[in-house]
Amino acid sequence: MDVEVLEGIFDANEKIARENEALFREHGVLAVNLMASPGAGKTSLISATLDRLAGRAQAGVIEGDIASSVDAEKIRTHGVPVVQINTGGACHLDAVMIRQALEHIDLSPLDLLIIENVGNLVCPAEFKLGESMRAMILSVAEGHDKPLKYPLMFSESDVLVVNKTDLIGMGDFDMEELRGTVTRMNPDIVIFEVSCRTGEGIEAWTSWLVERIAEHKERARRA
Amino acid sequence: MDVEVLEGIFDANEKIARENEALFREHGVLAVNLMASPGAGKTSLISATLDRLAGRAQAGVIEGDIASSVDAEKIRTHGVPVVQINTGGACHLDAVMIRQALEHIDLSPLDLLIIENVGNLVCPAEFKLGESMRAMILSVAEGHDKPLKYPLMFSESDVLVVNKTDLIGMGDFDMEELRGTVTRMNPDIVIFEVSCRTGEGIEAWTSWLVERIAEHKERARRA
Repeated sequence: MDVEVLEGIFDANEKIARENEALFREHGVLAVNLMASPGAGKTSLISATLDRLAGRAQAGVIEGDIASSVDAEKIRTHGVPVVQINTGGACHLDAVMIRQALEHIDLSPLDLLIIENVGNLVCPAEFKLGESMRAMILSVAEGHDKPLKYPLMFSESDVLVVNKTDLIGMGDFDMEELRGTVTRMNPDIVIFEVSCRTGEGIEAWTSWLVERIAEHKERARRA
Repeated sequence: MDVEVLEGIFDANEKIARENEALFREHGVLAVNLMASPGAGKTSLISATLDRLAGRAQAGVIEGDIASSVDAEKIRTHGVPVVQINTGGACHLDAVMIRQALEHIDLSPLDLLIIENVGNLVCPAEFKLGESMRAMILSVAEGHDKPLKYPLMFSESDVLVVNKTDLIGMGDFDMEELRGTVTRMNPDIVIFEVSCRTGEGIEAWTSWLVERIAEHKERARRA
């Protein structure tokens, strides 16, 4: 009986997610579901990416947090449209929350919508939002063994951004071991190495994102 | 209807948690529910604590992970009894999992049982295990703003261990701001600053833990 209820929740979420996805496609907006542990650098990566995107793509941001609006306030300084979702305790965003947030954001002028999920390496991977792309961040400080312990997130992501590369050498983090483990689990995943603090690798990631935006627009036009 | 089912789940968990708690009290075992984000240093803190505890207290460990047994293998090298729980996808431990794990561990010779929860700063705070103490770790790399964003964990913990103090100065982490925010939310919380990498602060934390073990045994004896 519990299982049936849970399946019902997943089914209902899936239906709304498909509607969100259709809306993004209709507007030619690449919607990125950005997931990571607390403190891995989601807001920092969004900030760094918005700086580099200026003049290359129009972005909007949905900020998901259990409580507080500190991240939304940081992102708002970049002059892009931002909607804050407070989940009020819930450990992940879901498709209904995104649908409600979309009532407060005009998709027409946008090329990219970055959705910052709740800081959690587990539950967000189980709930589709209607995103066009799943991106995750792993911080060097978290360690290279995390794919073994949180396999779903690493298996389901399209792109992995390894952040805080400026901390390499401070502990026993092994980038080659991480790359090996992740690509064995998910051979198609694209991996970037960045430091939001020093700016290292941000241009490579942003350029790749700009290409994906163009590709997505082209596909939407043809459909 | 969903809400009733969820309340049912919480009630059932609460009942088993009380049974676990009674069992720990009966054996005079201090059971510590150790919670933190992925990569904050739960396994490292357990390792460092076990090294310092040698000859001062008998410890056992329950290792909770979604998948893999890499942590249990690390802890086993300390020569203490270890039981691995794999949650198979679930984002937190619950009281039933602990009850099942307790079938594989003899509490009689133990003074301390450390339960390493799944790496997650959200969901574990909602499920009592029957623990005598709730301990959480925040890594300096995660940032000092985390209490605002994950308030339940910080409000419900008895002790906060701030780990990776060797990274202070590498980013904008502000210990005083963290201490201020946390103690406003939870005036009774005890805070330790440690680096499992350098060993800084580990003795202070371990000595405090040894005192809590003695106190807990004394209370159990009187009851």
